[in-house]
Amino acid sequence: MQSTIQRPRIVIVGCGFGGLEATRALRHAAVDITLLERTNHHLFQPLLYQVATAGLSAPAIAAPVRHLFRKQPNVTTLLGEVVTIEVAARQLLLADGLAIGYDHLIVAAGATHSYFGHDEWAPLAPGLKTLDDAFEIRRRILLAFEEAEKDSDPARRDAWLTFTVIGGGPTGVEMAGTLAEIARHTLSGEFRRIDPASAKILLIEGSARVLQAMPQDLSQRAIEQLTKLGVEVRVDSRVTAIDGDGLEVQGASGSYRIASRCVIWAAGVAASPLGAQLARGTGAPLDRAGRVQVEPDLSLAGHPEISVVGDLAAAMSHADGHDPRPVPGVSPAAKQMGRTAAANILRRLAGQPTLKFRYRDYGNLATIGRNAAVVDLVSPLGHFKFSGYFAWLFWLFAHIYFLIGFRNRLVVLMDWASAYWSKQRYARVVTDIEVPAPAPRP
Amino acid sequence: MQSTIQRPRIVIVGCGFGGLEATRALRHAAVDITLLERTNHHLFQPLLYQVATAGLSAPAIAAPVRHLFRKQPNVTTLLGEVVTIEVAARQLLLADGLAIGYDHLIVAAGATHSYFGHDEWAPLAPGLKTLDDAFEIRRRILLAFEEAEKDSDPARRDAWLTFTVIGGGPTGVEMAGTLAEIARHTLSGEFRRIDPASAKILLIEGSARVLQAMPQDLSQRAIEQLTKLGVEVRVDSRVTAIDGDGLEVQGASGSYRIASRCVIWAAGVAASPLGAQLARGTGAPLDRAGRVQVEPDLSLAGHPEISVVGDLAAAMSHADGHDPRPVPGVSPAAKQMGRTAAANILRRLAGQPTLKFRYRDYGNLATIGRNAAVVDLVSPLGHFKFSGYFAWLFWLFAHIYFLIGFRNRLVVLMDWASAYWSKQRYARVVTDIEVPAPAPRP
Repeated sequence: MQSTIQRPRIVIVGCGFGGLEATRALRHAAVDITLLERTNHHLFQPLLYQVATAGLSAPAIAAPVRHLFRKQPNVTTLLGEVVTIEVAARQLLLADGLAIGYDHLIVAAGATHSYFGHDEWAPLAPGLKTLDDAFEIRRRILLAFEEAEKDSDPARRDAWLTFTVIGGGPTGVEMAGTLAEIARHTLSGEFRRIDPASAKILLIEGSARVLQAMPQDLSQRAIEQLTKLGVEVRVDSRVTAIDGDGLEVQGASGSYRIASRCVIWAAGVAASPLGAQLARGTGAPLDRAGRVQVEPDLSLAGHPEISVVGDLAAAMSHADGHDPRPVPGVSPAAKQMGRTAAANILRRLAGQPTLKFRYRDYGNLATIGRNAAVVDLVSPLGHFKFSGYFAWLFWLFAHIYFLIGFRNRLVVLMDWASAYWSKQRYARVVTDIEVPAPAPRP
Repeated sequence: MQSTIQRPRIVIVGCGFGGLEATRALRHAAVDITLLERTNHHLFQPLLYQVATAGLSAPAIAAPVRHLFRKQPNVTTLLGEVVTIEVAARQLLLADGLAIGYDHLIVAAGATHSYFGHDEWAPLAPGLKTLDDAFEIRRRILLAFEEAEKDSDPARRDAWLTFTVIGGGPTGVEMAGTLAEIARHTLSGEFRRIDPASAKILLIEGSARVLQAMPQDLSQRAIEQLTKLGVEVRVDSRVTAIDGDGLEVQGASGSYRIASRCVIWAAGVAASPLGAQLARGTGAPLDRAGRVQVEPDLSLAGHPEISVVGDLAAAMSHADGHDPRPVPGVSPAAKQMGRTAAANILRRLAGQPTLKFRYRDYGNLATIGRNAAVVDLVSPLGHFKFSGYFAWLFWLFAHIYFLIGFRNRLVVLMDWASAYWSKQRYARVVTDIEVPAPAPRP
């Protein structure tokens, strides 16, 4: 009687960029993959701010995971949230109690918001990581204008028409620039008692410049473009308190208060709680953001059967010719890590030595708003830095190119084309009009 | 010193079809209109089932109200929910405390679900009236397949793969037919442990036929098309109990239980609670569904300054040559009532006699699913009844024609074209995977 040899069981947690690429990379392998995702979709996060600002509908940037992998027979997609990683038993426990055993595990669970120890700010200043976040931010933005239209008290009206974005990274810059677009263009002529163009948009950044991952001159260009769009950028400004009516800021010249009923958090990320699980189970160290420190080949020390990729990993890039460099928490890095982790699993299965991870940095791009972006491009042809209208076009096409799915690309292209010409935004849906109540002042 | 004469204040409650058309009809009038809507959008309800079945995104069928009326200077749009109608004082109170005075009032607040006295069924069997309803139904449909994929117990799996739609009107028929499409086509090949095509789709109807507003032969045609699509239609079947695991049905041959984890309610509507407000304030009678009985010119007896239109009104259609006929609760009727009520306000302002409302019935149409629909068309050229593929094309183009907004029309046309060719549905987004817990059996 022949014994049936079970194929190696690979479990991949998370279908963000890291998990997606790892799963794809294993498509021809004689393995059984279980892909676990706690929403039913892969989210194209770079465009999430567009859903948050009512410029795109959610389905344009969210692809159902099991649809993406329908033609890959060695993948079983399951919808569920991992709550426990049992390292010794080599199994995961889901929230509904289901146990999933593995021979090899890739944890690509990503990151969430960090409020720097002030978790009480979370309901007051939503961040932008998931579609639910985007819906909530969208709701608050649209409601703020609606409430201003109804309120005859000038001070309260001003607070409704003051929008504060905390954090000068790409997400914050994109949100602030788009808020300015909404106030100055999209809502033009639609109100009778307020002038939406009179809205104040503030971008608060703790360090000395915005877009810290970019070269200094592009940071400066971004500030110029933001200012031209009508955003007030305040660097060297730290938020010390947030309540339902506004926030307290510590700036260069002292402390002051901003009355603002719509505050958006784009200032800090923290790794998924699964990082702490892995640290407990394997002894792997965590960095300050809770990310798991991985070996050069992305596995955990002493546990070659577990790899961590994407925003959950604190990884280094190894190449001849330079010292190991930290890998940034950006989408291209997550994708490359996913591919490397998958390739290394196959190498282990074949008894071959694993590869050290090498991050190929193609550069950085961030949009600021209508006709404005900054691009820092690293290519075999050289290093290009540009900004303004041409950078904005480049940004548009790059994002459409990287979107998953032909139909999504067509939809987004059409949405943007029509939005550009008409200065309109087409996903302005609010279903719940209960306004966030102002919290009692501490 | 000249005294400023204030223009007549017209307040319109609700921006469904009735409120929308009434507001439009007053666009050239020297009046000040306040349009109150408790969401920020006008909803194209005939296509709401498409959002519920993940075929269209919400923004495709929802147009922001203040955007629709930006070019009508005599309209001020306010987002708010009316909680009290103070008839003697001629003012409305909103949920946030704002008071809005009126000289003339059109209440177009529509209808909600009726569970025939069993409000406890509401969380177990969601209905389909608002976008939030559609999101919830979509969530439960997609989750049901996901849970079935994870559950190895055959009985529980069967319950997850049994979908029950209660109510054989157009909404129920459309939902059931589309559920069959999802199970047989959309999800094909996407699961590894279940065969989604094995899902059971049940349509439960209390009376002897579906689509009661249609001629008998078209009802029969609809049942045939549903059956061909794989829906099991059970007429003469009344629901007697719903719990989280399934429902009890009283049929011709006795009582029996259906184990079904996804139950959708499409069986009854009840008028908005504002109907009861008006009855209390004016003495106007309500019918069994809570709709307000109106005079031939759509105003309330003894209160010519108040009109009620749309699903909230129990109105009669008056024309020479036939007795007054009840006006059905359909979109074209709401639109016509809105226009008539607005015209009558202008007549009253001009001291002219008002018009009796006359409903022009152009017929009825209902889609069943892919390539299948029934159309009952009344036109000056004659009365046409047809079904099948051609009826389905007609249905598609009629709905696109009546959609508000060119861009929405283009989006929906594209979505449907690509969905048809690929048999895919593109709005399959689930963000909250908490499954509705089975309720304890009573």
